Amino acid sequence: MNKIEHIGIAVENVEESNLLFAKLLNTESYKTEEVKSEGVKTSFFRIGDSKIELLEATNQDSSIAKFINKRGVGVHHIAMRVSDIYAEIKRLQNEGFTIIGDGTPKKGADNMLICFMHPKSTNGILIELCQEL
Amino acid sequence: MNKIEHIGIAVENVEESNLLFAKLLNTESYKTEEVKSEGVKTSFFRIGDSKIELLEATNQDSSIAKFINKRGVGVHHIAMRVSDIYAEIKRLQNEGFTIIGDGTPKKGADNMLICFMHPKSTNGILIELCQEL
Repeated sequence: MNKIEHIGIAVENVEESNLLFAKLLNTESYKTEEVKSEGVKTSFFRIGDSKIELLEATNQDSSIAKFINKRGVGVHHIAMRVSDIYAEIKRLQNEGFTIIGDGTPKKGADNMLICFMHPKSTNGILIELCQEL
Repeated sequence: MNKIEHIGIAVENVEESNLLFAKLLNTESYKTEEVKSEGVKTSFFRIGDSKIELLEATNQDSSIAKFINKRGVGVHHIAMRVSDIYAEIKRLQNEGFTIIGDGTPKKGADNMLICFMHPKSTNGILIELCQEL
């Protein structure tokens, strides 16, 4: 794993949270993007060599809506940048970690190939692996 | 704010979690440190320009013990590196954010001057500000 690519944060309303995080981080959001397949609207801020990704659910089936209903707003996932996501999935599976789904990465926001690791195998943290396309 | 300094992760047992995170991050912990004033044992891993800090409570009054009792293990806080913590505290208070305590930074782990922002003012996230001493 090369770096913390981003921290994903579940928010109720991405426009309102854009204002809050602009004040907090002292920088503006540089990109917003809707990922229809995931039912989310996203917004990105740069901080150092990493990003903050705000995530608002666009429907009640979205994993973000379910997360907020259960745990409230806050940190949703940690994304780690990898050079070769296929090799990293294989390495982690061999170490006993659980990749969510069938172990095949898919296209996510921000032009990334992504997959998620199950929090039960990672001390309660939802970890995303991502490789730039 | 200059970068994500570290992500603080509440764990039950830092020795066991050291093994798990070494497999996950594919690197060893480079430092362990006990902060008696906070009732925690910590362990640090490097990832890119940031760190992962594992936190185990050493007594039941520790904020980590209370966090785990309420929410379970997982992401406890996000630490942001700042150049001048006194100036940043003033800027954030002027923007309406709440600094926990009397607004005076104190000495934390890893030779840092630190303070925490109240999660109620930061979308449910416990944010630490830290400046290298």
